[in-house]
Formats: sequence, structure tokens, C-alpha cells
Amino acid sequence: MHTKRFLALSLCFCAAPLFADEGMWTFDNPPVKQLEAKYGFTPTKEWLDHVRLASVRFNNGGSGSFVSAHGLVLTNHHIALEELQKDSTEAHDYVKNGFYAPSEDQELKSPDLEVNVLMSLEDVTARVADAVKGAKTPEREFAARKAVIAEIERESEKKTGLRSEVVTLYKGGEYWLYRYKKYTDVRIVFAPEEQIAYFGGDPDNFTYPRYDLDMALFRIYENGKPIESKDYLKWNPKGAGEGELVFVSGNPGSTQRLDTVAQLVTERDVLLPNVLSLLRNRIAVLNEYSALGAEQTREGIEHRLEMENSRKALEGESEGLRDNSVMSKKQKEEDEFRAKVDGNPEWKAAYGGAWDALAEAEKKMASRAKEFYFHGLDSDLADFARTIVEYVAEIKKPDGERLPGYHEAQLASLKFRLASPAPIYKALEIARITGAIELDRAEMGSDDRMVKMVLDGKTPNEAATELVNGTRLEDPEVRKKLMEGGEAAVAASSDAMIVLARKLDPMRREFTKWMEDNVRSVGQRAGEQLGKARFAAYGKTTYPDATFTLRLSYGQVKGYPMNGTEAPYKTTLYGLYDRAASFDFAPPFNLPSRFLEERNKLDLATPMDFVTTDDITGGNSGSPVINRNAELVGLIFDGNIESLVGDFVYDESKNRAVAVHTAVMTEAMKKLYGAGKLVDELMEGDK
Amino acid sequence: MHTKRFLALSLCFCAAPLFADEGMWTFDNPPVKQLEAKYGFTPTKEWLDHVRLASVRFNNGGSGSFVSAHGLVLTNHHIALEELQKDSTEAHDYVKNGFYAPSEDQELKSPDLEVNVLMSLEDVTARVADAVKGAKTPEREFAARKAVIAEIERESEKKTGLRSEVVTLYKGGEYWLYRYKKYTDVRIVFAPEEQIAYFGGDPDNFTYPRYDLDMALFRIYENGKPIESKDYLKWNPKGAGEGELVFVSGNPGSTQRLDTVAQLVTERDVLLPNVLSLLRNRIAVLNEYSALGAEQTREGIEHRLEMENSRKALEGESEGLRDNSVMSKKQKEEDEFRAKVDGNPEWKAAYGGAWDALAEAEKKMASRAKEFYFHGLDSDLADFARTIVEYVAEIKKPDGERLPGYHEAQLASLKFRLASPAPIYKALEIARITGAIELDRAEMGSDDRMVKMVLDGKTPNEAATELVNGTRLEDPEVRKKLMEGGEAAVAASSDAMIVLARKLDPMRREFTKWMEDNVRSVGQRAGEQLGKARFAAYGKTTYPDATFTLRLSYGQVKGYPMNGTEAPYKTTLYGLYDRAASFDFAPPFNLPSRFLEERNKLDLATPMDFVTTDDITGGNSGSPVINRNAELVGLIFDGNIESLVGDFVYDESKNRAVAVHTAVMTEAMKKLYGAGKLVDELMEGDK
Repeated sequence: MHTKRFLALSLCFCAAPLFADEGMWTFDNPPVKQLEAKYGFTPTKEWLDHVRLASVRFNNGGSGSFVSAHGLVLTNHHIALEELQKDSTEAHDYVKNGFYAPSEDQELKSPDLEVNVLMSLEDVTARVADAVKGAKTPEREFAARKAVIAEIERESEKKTGLRSEVVTLYKGGEYWLYRYKKYTDVRIVFAPEEQIAYFGGDPDNFTYPRYDLDMALFRIYENGKPIESKDYLKWNPKGAGEGELVFVSGNPGSTQRLDTVAQLVTERDVLLPNVLSLLRNRIAVLNEYSALGAEQTREGIEHRLEMENSRKALEGESEGLRDNSVMSKKQKEEDEFRAKVDGNPEWKAAYGGAWDALAEAEKKMASRAKEFYFHGLDSDLADFARTIVEYVAEIKKPDGERLPGYHEAQLASLKFRLASPAPIYKALEIARITGAIELDRAEMGSDDRMVKMVLDGKTPNEAATELVNGTRLEDPEVRKKLMEGGEAAVAASSDAMIVLARKLDPMRREFTKWMEDNVRSVGQRAGEQLGKARFAAYGKTTYPDATFTLRLSYGQVKGYPMNGTEAPYKTTLYGLYDRAASFDFAPPFNLPSRFLEERNKLDLATPMDFVTTDDITGGNSGSPVINRNAELVGLIFDGNIESLVGDFVYDESKNRAVAVHTAVMTEAMKKLYGAGKLVDELMEGDK
Repeated sequence: MHTKRFLALSLCFCAAPLFADEGMWTFDNPPVKQLEAKYGFTPTKEWLDHVRLASVRFNNGGSGSFVSAHGLVLTNHHIALEELQKDSTEAHDYVKNGFYAPSEDQELKSPDLEVNVLMSLEDVTARVADAVKGAKTPEREFAARKAVIAEIERESEKKTGLRSEVVTLYKGGEYWLYRYKKYTDVRIVFAPEEQIAYFGGDPDNFTYPRYDLDMALFRIYENGKPIESKDYLKWNPKGAGEGELVFVSGNPGSTQRLDTVAQLVTERDVLLPNVLSLLRNRIAVLNEYSALGAEQTREGIEHRLEMENSRKALEGESEGLRDNSVMSKKQKEEDEFRAKVDGNPEWKAAYGGAWDALAEAEKKMASRAKEFYFHGLDSDLADFARTIVEYVAEIKKPDGERLPGYHEAQLASLKFRLASPAPIYKALEIARITGAIELDRAEMGSDDRMVKMVLDGKTPNEAATELVNGTRLEDPEVRKKLMEGGEAAVAASSDAMIVLARKLDPMRREFTKWMEDNVRSVGQRAGEQLGKARFAAYGKTTYPDATFTLRLSYGQVKGYPMNGTEAPYKTTLYGLYDRAASFDFAPPFNLPSRFLEERNKLDLATPMDFVTTDDITGGNSGSPVINRNAELVGLIFDGNIESLVGDFVYDESKNRAVAVHTAVMTEAMKKLYGAGKLVDELMEGDK
């Protein structure tokens, strides 16, 4: 019964926003007041620096952390999945069977993973403002801002050798230069079977109670040797207790908590319906392909899981936006904010027009949204072709005038990606391209420019087959030669994919330019005005929307009301076996054989997963959960279903981050996977 | 994945009402067409008779079934709880520790349990209609109907010696005479600890996935010996598989699926808010009393659980009624029905006025609803006093003119109840009466008639203490003497409770008469008109609302979408340990010591609870779940949270009955409770 009272109490906290465990805070502006008031804890500069330097970002959209002095990085299995798949062959299916390298020489290099560590943060708002000052139109402002940002990044990269990125925070209220140390020699050390990492599959995705061992360990090398560092998180196999204060340090991808109501309405009525149509179609194509056999399933699984993941998340978002209480809360906040701005003549003159400007830009975007979503070929080969065709043209321009993705500071990562030896499955490519063209035609009609150019009288399947069979871009060497050959080589190429990319290039450029001029530039200017207006009206009391950059969240380990009863703060290995047996071990609730055969080795009361009130979102996958002593107590891998609306609002009463408990990682590595040596390395720091 | 498709399919079924697993069918009108069409199964007359005769009704509001040739009756622990409590002493707490009688002479007699078996059903609609014909006003019609019903019951009782009840079905569209064999020698044989029967307590109540061993076994005696019978259900320890057709035979208490919209609105806006206020207050009183110690907790627990159970159920109902989609579905159905009736001049003349008449009666009821709810003393002693005072006056009248509850056919049960030697806890009585008066005063003011009469210048606690200390009605002998002494003895009594009951008697009679004249009589006439109108418009294609009489439900073992994922069709013992360990074994998620100490004896993959689409409601507690061969595969003990709105609508996609699996009952009795002998008796029928 005490838990009920506990929950009632937390609802009270919820009504007092100062005390809610809300926010994805930048490391320059941690929620010191909130932590002091609610938890009596004040993070020191050393604590913050240590946590930041122990945190990593993966270039494929995930987070992670250093967990040993010898470069071990912990992240989710689903972040490692793509690499496991690329390292697999028909003979060695590491996705299905897991992977463990008992010695360093058995560790496998990832073809294209890159890991970034945030080394420094610098406020460059003034410099960006200076460069933009005096621009008469949003288009000129946009160009000037783009130019100065590219300049800042290039200068920094040259000066420090670090990957340098200017981050737009508070919708342009602030600009910060983030510098990263970049590691590209990333080797897989340990991963369990996908079936236990993603136990419960698509149905259990985004839900809790949960029973997933969604972990993987990489080792970071530099100059052929594991890196040595003091900035790693000590492994605490006991985990965190109920009610304990815990932090999450990771890279939340994107949120829209500062969006205007007009933007949310476009999201709800235009963007989400289109992207959901896209995802449902793409998933159907992959399901059809997987039905052909085990090998086809293996080839398509990573891509399919990613899209199923997105679909469920976006369906939750869509439902959240259709909830009138969410929308009316947003409307009320906006009305108050706008009244405050309009009530001050100076603010009104500087920022008051932003809402209407945004609403107008949203209307324009809606008018061409279908092109944005359906003019894609869902193909790795087509992406290579497009990148090569654009690359050879862009690098001839001054940095500030290039298309996004082709700035000097981004080129190393781009080249690394194009040099990847990861296998391309041609039959899968044909299936995906066929599906994409069919969808484009269904959504936009046979007269659509893109449809006509791609089909050119053929059926979608004929066109896709010709394209895939007529290209050699699956070979990294071919890609490299074309890039090095420049415009001349690309213009001379008769590779089918390159030919098509050349044909599509003008249309794509027109669309990008139109979006920049009519939507993005207006949006940036208005967003910046709103960001400044917010600082003027409320001060820097809040956190910026997520930008896939390092953030600190805080909260406590805590259950929540669910399904008429209470979800516990943790689950145990007992529950894993219950859920499997409850579905008679039918997929996706089947267990890897070692879990069936060696069950008696396990202490079934071992905590498996747990939930916290920390405010996270997609991109936080793989983030460490740490206690006050900056010890690792868990590994973020999901949010609960109630957190999906978190893109727009945070509700402490039900929003939960879901993490793997350190206890089950320790128990499984030691007792089921024979990876005691690895556990010893992780525990070294505890001595 | 297949489960998802399966669910999608069932949603289709849902749209075609003919195929939904809906209905609590009377045994004279089983859903033969539906069973044939959806499951290819046709129950024979023998099958139906056997199931009916193996089913029992408990006089405390539950159901059960014969499960051995020697009179063993299986029901829920929560149906047996009151008796376990009455049989308990400070030295032997059977609620806390469980009970098992390894031999017949150790079986304990229940002080006041009565078990009924439905021996026959007879349509008496014509006779009731005849008697009522020609009555000019609803009041006269009401009196005439009451009289003929009492006459039918009395005649039948005299002729057959069986308990005879006329049941109003289809709101008066039909009247049936149900005859019961009555057993009053009911002995407790086996019950586990309450903690495992009601594992998860109030939070898990009405939810699923669930992990309760909510079972008890009684043995029925006649003439001092266990009864012998062929009509018992064979015990099938394997239970039922996913998707299997299963039936529930039991006594659903009441539903309001045929109510008019006006009635539902009163329910939502007047009745439910009042009864919820009452329940919350009563529960608070009991919680305060329980806080005094373990003995007080024991005394009050059964009453508290009952009320917590009601509260959660009614809160669910209340929420259901506040769901616009439920109400608008109802409104649409009513509009169609009314249009059909109004479209036929003959029907319109006979039935067309019923809706407005009901709406008018509802308004009147609302005007005095608070008296109905808050003029009660929440006291067993006060109930005895009221019954005695009314009894001595009523039995002097002709049967047809008596207050409900005092008809000849009801007297044996009434006397049995008043003769119960079950202990009365006086301190608990004082606490409950004090709370009831305080609530009455808070809801109706100090000038309320009842408040004034009971308090008479004293504080609620003083008044309650004087009443309880001034009565000897806790003694069955005292009650018996007063009843036998008739009006003279009651008039002469100075027993404080009797004195108060005499004082309150005129007020209560006035209220009962007013309700009969203004609400019940109008409601009965109009209800009957609607019942007939429904037959005229749609034929006898549906089932009547529940009336705590025997019904047959059908459906299949099947999970459902829940919390963003899927609830499995069954749970296992693994899950019991998971839920306990997830809450660190804190109450109400603690386990009896034998479950902790002897865990290794158990096969943890044993199915524990399971769900079916059978349409049930309160009163079905303890009902058997049977397969096509009429073998026992489970024991109903609850519905899921989504089924609470089932009072008004049935939704096959999410509405589920929750049952204990025969496998876990077998496993636990044999391995944990040393009750192998009992298991042998249950399995006899399988040989």
C-alpha cells in the first residue's frame, strides 16, 4: 500500500514544475537548483567533467559510455546491431548467436562505426549574431548564418584537430561550438543473442515491464592499441535502489517542446500521417522479403527493426498530439508567452511577428510535404550515388555555400561512411527500391516527376532490377574512384545508379533550395526570435530542445501506475521466464538455448530491467545510468509507452526511462557467457 | 507476430455482433446458433443438464461447482473468506495461515453458508401477465405482480420442498420460476493463505496479468454425511490451450445492458457519485480500525476487502460511463430501437411511453437518492434489529403484501442467517456505526431526520457506543427469542438496537413505500413494456441482464492488447515470483513462507492464471471454467480492468474473464500443502 501513497506524492510534485524531474540539460547549464532543492545534491565541476568525458556518442544515432580503463564502451545491442550484422556471414551469424572475444586479437573491427567524445563547449552566439546582423531578408540571414557557422567549424577543426560542430540551442537563442574527439577504430567485444537483447520484439518495444538484455561492449582503439583513460564509469553491480537519485548522460536526438501550436498542428495533420504511411509501406516490403527465408530475414532485420521502432514511436507521438489535453496545455502556454511578448513594446517589435511567420512557413511546407517523404528510393546504393554526385559538385564551392552534409568539417565522416566495406544485399535493394517507387506512384500519381524519371516506361520492379544490376557501387573502391575522379569522372560514368542520380540532381536541388528559402530560413529566423523572446521573458531557467548532443537528465528509480495497478521499479529474471513461458516460448518470446539449458546457474531474483523518471528520448539509447558517485548502475535502452508523447511534454507521473540493470549484465556475462574475464575488467575500478 | 494478426481478426468479429463471445445466457435459451457458427459445437440437453446440476450458487453472492463424487465444491478463496474468518479465533487464524482438513472429521462447518443448486426452470410469464391484466395504475400493477409472484413461490415451495424464486428477465419481458435444492451443511476442506489467494491485494485487483491462487474447497453434507452425486465436473489438470473454446457456468449478479440512456445518466451523475462517497468513507473507517493492531485487522479485513473490491469496480464503471463513445453507442442503439417502436402504431401505443415514464421515475429517484445511500448504519447488529422489527410485523400480513425479503419462500434463508453463531466484534461495530452517522450528517446535514433520531443530542461516537453496549443481539438465542416472541416481545424490548429500530421503522417504511410507488412500480411497468417491445422488434435473439441466477457464457482462451503490447493468455508461477521480487517482497506482494521455503519443489513453468473472452460479471466469482467435454479447466475469480465497463457494454477485443488454472491448483495442493489425498479425490473422475 505504501507505494500508492508514494505515487500520490509524486503527483503533487508534478503540479509544482520546479520539482519535476524534467529536462535534458546542457553541461554548461546543469539543473543545480533543482538537484539541490529536491535531492540535496550539488554536482561539482569535476563530477560534470568526468561524466562528460566518460560519455560517448555513436555516429549511427546512439549513446554509450567508457566502463573500463582500457577503452571498453558499453552501449545497447540495438546500437551495435548494424555492425554485428555487417561483421556476420552466413557461417557466423553474430546477430543470432551473439559474439564474445575472450582476447583482444579476437575483437572484430566495425566497418564504419565512429565514436565521439565531447571535449569542450564554447558559446559562439555573439559571433553568429554579428555575422547575421544587417541581413535584410530571411534568405540572406540564412545564408550568412550558414556561412559563419561553417567558418567557425572549419577554423576550430584546423586549430584543434577535433571534430567541430556549431549547435543551435533554444531554437537559435544560443549557438554553441561543440568539439569532439573522434575514434574510428571501434571493435566489438561482446554481444548476447539478439533474441535476449530484444526479447519480446516489436510487441514489447516501448513498453514496461520489460525483460531485455539490450547490451553490447565495444573497445576503442587508437593507433592499433586500446585507449587508456581515467574517465570511465565505475561498474556498480548492485545497481540503484527504489527512490534513488540517478542521472542519465547521453545524446537525446530531438524534441519539439518549444514548438509553436501551428508547428504541432502541421506535425499532427501533415507530417506524421505521411511518415507513418511511408514506414508502414517500407515495413510491409521488408516483411515480404523476410518471408523468403532465414538468410533474407537476416539481411533485412536491422533495417526492419529500426523502422518498426520508428513506427511505434511515431504512432505514440501521433496519439499524444491527438490528445486534446496535450494540445490545449500547449495552447495555454503559448497564449501566456505571446501575451507577455505583446505586452512589452520592445519585445513585440523584435519578436512579435515570429508566430505568424512560422504559421505561414508551415503552410508552405505542408504544400510540398509529400515530395519530401515519397521522393526517396529506400536504397543504400541510391544513397551512395546521390552522395557521390552531390559531393563532386559541392566540394568546388566555398564551404559556407555548400549543401548540408558537405561542409569541410563533415567530410571525414562522409568519406568514412562511403569507404565502409559492409555488404550490400542486391536482392534486398531491388525489393526496397521497387516498394519505394510503388509507394511514390500511389501517393503522388503516375505523372509525378520522380516517378516518370525513375520508371521511364518500365514497371517499378523492372526499373529497380536494372538499376541494381547496372551499378557497381556496392564496391567501396568504385565509390572511392568516382569521388576522387571528381565531376569529370561522375559525368562520364555509365553506372546505372550514377546516371539516375545525375538525372534526379536538378530536381533535388530545386526542392532543397525551395525548402531553404520558404521554410527553413523563415523557421530559423522566427525560431531564433522566439528563443530570444523566451530568454527575455523567462530567463535561462529551462533546457533547450534535444539536438543529438550531450545532455544530463536526472530523476529517481520509481514505478508508476499502469493498467489499473502498479508497475514495479524493477523486473527480475523470474519475469523473463514467465513472459516466455506465458507465450509458450513462441517468437518473439522465445529464449536463446543457453537461457533454457543453463537456467539453473542463474539467480532468478537478479534484477533485470528498471525504470527511472529521467527525461530522455530517442538517441539516448545506450546512455549510462549513474548514481551520485558517478558509478554505472544501468544502461538506458528504451522509454515506456507513456513516454512517447515526451517529444512534446514531460509527465513525471508516468513518463519513464527503461534501463538494463548492472546486476543482470554481470550475472549473465559471468554465468551464461563465460565472460568472467570481461567482468573482471569491468570490476577493476571497484578495487 | 501471429498473435497480432489473431487480434486483428478478433476485431473483425467484434464488428459482426453475431460472432462476438457476448452474453450471459439462460439455460433455457443457450446460444446454440453462435456456438455452431463460430466453434462448430452444439451442446446437447444432457450436457446442459449436467453442467447446470454441477453448478452451485452461494448465498453470500458467489458461484461454485461440484468437483468430486463426494460433495466437494470448488469456489474462490474470497467467497470462502467470510466463513474462514468466522471459523477463526485468535489462536487459529485460517485467513492468514490457510486451512486443510486431511480427514472428514476435521472439516469445519460454516456458520451460515447456504449452497443452492438449480433443479428446474419454468416459464410463468403468462400467469404473471394474467394477474396483472386490468390493473389501472402502476401502483396496482406492482401490487398485483408482487402478490402473484409470492403466490407462485409459495405454491412451488409447498409442492416441491425446493427453494422457489420467480426471476424477472428481460426487464419483465419474461418471468421464470427457478427451483433450487438448498444445502446448509457446508464444511470447509481446504483454503490456502489469503496472501497467495489475494496476491497483489488491492492494486492488482481487477487487473491482469495476475498471479492469484484464489481457491477454496468445501464439502456439502446432508443428514450428517457427504452427498454423493454423479453431477460433478471432472478435474482436468492440463487446463485449456490458447484459442480453446471454454464455458463459464455461474451466477452473474447484475448488469445494465438493457438500461435506457436516462437510466445510465442517473447512474453516472447521481447514484455512482453517492455510492463512491459511501464506499470511500466506509473504507477509511475500517483502515483506521485496522491500524489499531493485528486482531483488529483480522476482524475488519473481510468487510474491507469487499468494499475495496466494490470501490475499484464502481470507479471503473463510473469511468466507463463518462466515456463518450460508450454513451453515444447506447444513444444510437436506443434511437434505433425507439424509432422501430414508434414506426409501428400498435407497438407505439403499447410501449412507446416507456422511455419518458422511466426518465420521469429517474428524476424522482434522484431527488431522494441520498436517503437511500446514507440512511444506513453499516452495522450487523443494526441489521439484525431492523430485520427482527420488520419480521414480526410482516409475517402477520398476506404473503403478497409483505416487504421484499419477508415472503414465505424467503423465510427459511432469513432465519438461517439470523441463527448464525458467527462472532460479532463490538469495537468494530462501534467504529462502523460512528463512521456511518458522521457520513450521514456530512452528506445530509444535522437536521436530517435519521441523524436527529440516532444522535438525540449525543456525539456519533457516544451514540454508537451506547447502542452497541446496550444490545445483546450478538447472541443468536436473543435474536431467536425476539422473533418467536412476535410483535409483543419486540414492543416490550429495551434492547438499545431494537429500540432504535422501532423508532426508525416508520421512516423506513415511508421511504420504501415512496420508492415503490414513484420509482419501482413505474420502472417495472416501463421495463416490462421495453422487454416486450424488444421481443416484438428483435425476437428472442439476445440474453437478459444478469440477475444472480445461473447463466452460461462461452468464449475462448485468449490474450489481448494491453499497455502497448500483448497480455499473454496465461501466466506462470515464474511470474508470481517475479512480481513479488520486483516489489522486494513488500506487502501486498509478499509471499506465504511455504512459497519461499519450498520453492524448489515447484515446477515454475506451471500455468497459474489465464484469461478468456467469456462474458461474466460480479457474482460469477467461483464459477467453473469448463471445456467442450464439461471438464473443469479453471476457476473464475475476476475480470480485467477493461471489463469493468461490462456492466453496460461487452467489448470482445479487451474484455476478459480471469481464472485460476487447474494446473497450479493441482501443483500447489500436492507439493506445497500436503493435500495429495484431496488431489486423488479430485482425480478419481479421470480414471
